[in-house]
Amino acid sequence: MKLNTIVEGLQPSLIRTLKQEAKKYPNVIDLTIGEPDITPPKQLVDELMEYGKHNQLKYALSGGGSEVRQSVADFYNKKYGGNYTINNVVMNVGASEAISSTFRTILNPDDEVLVMTPYFLGYIPTIQLCYAKPIFVDISKNDFKITKELLQKYITPKTKAILFSNPCNPTGHVLSIEEMEDIVSIIEENEIFLVADEIYSELAFYEFHSFAKYNTIREKTIIINGLSKSHCMTGWRIGYTICPEKYIQNFLNMSFYTVSSVMSLSLKGAEVALKNYTDRSDLVEIYKERAEYLYTELTRLGFDVVKPKGAFYLFTKYDKISNLKSMEFSLDLLKNTGVAVVPGISFGLNEYIRIALTVDIEKLKEVIERLEKFITKK
Amino acid sequence: MKLNTIVEGLQPSLIRTLKQEAKKYPNVIDLTIGEPDITPPKQLVDELMEYGKHNQLKYALSGGGSEVRQSVADFYNKKYGGNYTINNVVMNVGASEAISSTFRTILNPDDEVLVMTPYFLGYIPTIQLCYAKPIFVDISKNDFKITKELLQKYITPKTKAILFSNPCNPTGHVLSIEEMEDIVSIIEENEIFLVADEIYSELAFYEFHSFAKYNTIREKTIIINGLSKSHCMTGWRIGYTICPEKYIQNFLNMSFYTVSSVMSLSLKGAEVALKNYTDRSDLVEIYKERAEYLYTELTRLGFDVVKPKGAFYLFTKYDKISNLKSMEFSLDLLKNTGVAVVPGISFGLNEYIRIALTVDIEKLKEVIERLEKFITKK
Repeated sequence: MKLNTIVEGLQPSLIRTLKQEAKKYPNVIDLTIGEPDITPPKQLVDELMEYGKHNQLKYALSGGGSEVRQSVADFYNKKYGGNYTINNVVMNVGASEAISSTFRTILNPDDEVLVMTPYFLGYIPTIQLCYAKPIFVDISKNDFKITKELLQKYITPKTKAILFSNPCNPTGHVLSIEEMEDIVSIIEENEIFLVADEIYSELAFYEFHSFAKYNTIREKTIIINGLSKSHCMTGWRIGYTICPEKYIQNFLNMSFYTVSSVMSLSLKGAEVALKNYTDRSDLVEIYKERAEYLYTELTRLGFDVVKPKGAFYLFTKYDKISNLKSMEFSLDLLKNTGVAVVPGISFGLNEYIRIALTVDIEKLKEVIERLEKFITKK
Repeated sequence: MKLNTIVEGLQPSLIRTLKQEAKKYPNVIDLTIGEPDITPPKQLVDELMEYGKHNQLKYALSGGGSEVRQSVADFYNKKYGGNYTINNVVMNVGASEAISSTFRTILNPDDEVLVMTPYFLGYIPTIQLCYAKPIFVDISKNDFKITKELLQKYITPKTKAILFSNPCNPTGHVLSIEEMEDIVSIIEENEIFLVADEIYSELAFYEFHSFAKYNTIREKTIIINGLSKSHCMTGWRIGYTICPEKYIQNFLNMSFYTVSSVMSLSLKGAEVALKNYTDRSDLVEIYKERAEYLYTELTRLGFDVVKPKGAFYLFTKYDKISNLKSMEFSLDLLKNTGVAVVPGISFGLNEYIRIALTVDIEKLKEVIERLEKFITKK
């Protein structure tokens, strides 16, 4: 029988495909999925598991109770200059559900959403499943920088939102103040939502500014974040949405009619982590060291790497090394070196690959050795 | 700015509204939400919390890994006469997400879904959010029984699915073999999905048959279940979908692009619970005793109660006691007796209330005392 037309057209994530493919190779170094190799604070986990032993995990309130929502508001207010209360916060099942539910809440069929290319691959189906249209703004031709002029070219009466990943997956780019002000100015001048995916906010190497601090666009700003990256709690599925207060009931209703509520121990985890484990600088140092090492070495080998300023990926062109398309090149790399990466086509750019910095420096050295051998042989 | 049109029309759940209202009253007996007062097996919880201490909770595979999906298949095959493999199973964030994702996977705009009235209130927005249309089949006029003749009247070329809650929330009705055969025959003769919400399957007082055992409609049967009710693990958010194998990738994709994956400890919980904690007869005895007690007493007081055969609710008419509409009657009851129930209008029938059997017999005796005093005074 016929299923939903959009669903019938969906492809499984290429990241997950490559990850599965990688499992076939012995001694593979898996740099595909954005799964931190670093563990969450042990004390935090122990505390939560003790809580789980002694408290029945009952239904939480949809969108989370007031304590956890207050933790999120406080975290954003203190760290990023926000001015939020619990009436701006909805807890979600990971940033994935936050993004999905945000688009389902704000989009009508035929609405357009501007998406920067390269984009995180999960964005596109999420928009399409709302019968809305992603409009691609290719920033690779603009040295991965965003300007008002560039964005303006793509705005139409149908534009409902502009979506940014900042710090960016896959490039590791962190928006500069100039870029942010250009974006803010566009939002000020148009009836358009700004959807800012700030899931890597705690992993900026130099500086990071959240859109939370721009009061002039407060009524149009929706921020997505969570604890998967900042606290290495991927499997806990903790995300949240910060939205204008006047839409809070709509966001809560959507979350209620999608997942009812978030797993109760995860909500407790979010509450405790955002209160008591807010200094993530150790994590930043680790990823920064890896990024700088790999950036230098890949550049030496002839890769044309986008300079990373945050998150935990390198996004790199490889045209001096191979003229294969990105899927073929990734499979070629995997076969010949046992290094698994994600083809750029997953993010909308065929001449690139994405490398996750989710193994330690020793392993990264081995990655470089393997790549060097591979390139020298060619 | 304008949000999604359907979302703008959504109302918060009346169950949650009544629950919030109830909090204002001291000594309230809250019989609103379907939250079991009974705890999950302590040994199970302790085992899981130990697991959580010693294993990092990383991203799970979308839809769950093969172990947990195998547990679900085994459980359904052994208990309910299914014939499933892991390629029929997708893990979800509670039965709520299972239902939401099922409808998003199978429905196109303008499709029709037959829904029996009284219905679980979450169903309707979930269908509407797909731009599809719930078609109400009022079975209250038919002594809450389903017949082929009744269903046939509502089938049109747009009918995409028929949805059943069995055992039924809110009535506690369990489908008889005759009713099931009527339904099966309808599905055999039409290109229509059967969506069977079997979340209360383990809480049938006398007998229960799953649609899993009907092989002739296997390619059109989608079953929703989870551990919230069978294992009192509401806050864990564990649900699952059993679907025809040929659609498995579609269901997995939908789940991936909605929540990415389920909370890893919850998946472990499902795996262990469905393997090692499968005898739930203690639970059945408890709810059955409560149901029989309350059924007898309410009948004595003049309520016209639907005879419960499973789940943990009583659904009752109260026309001999009050001629208020169900919302007003529920608020009147709450104000005068401190007993919080859910108005029937939440389930599509204004002359009824739903009472959750989620307190012990002693408390239920107090409920009866309070109601008796209230009724005598009138």
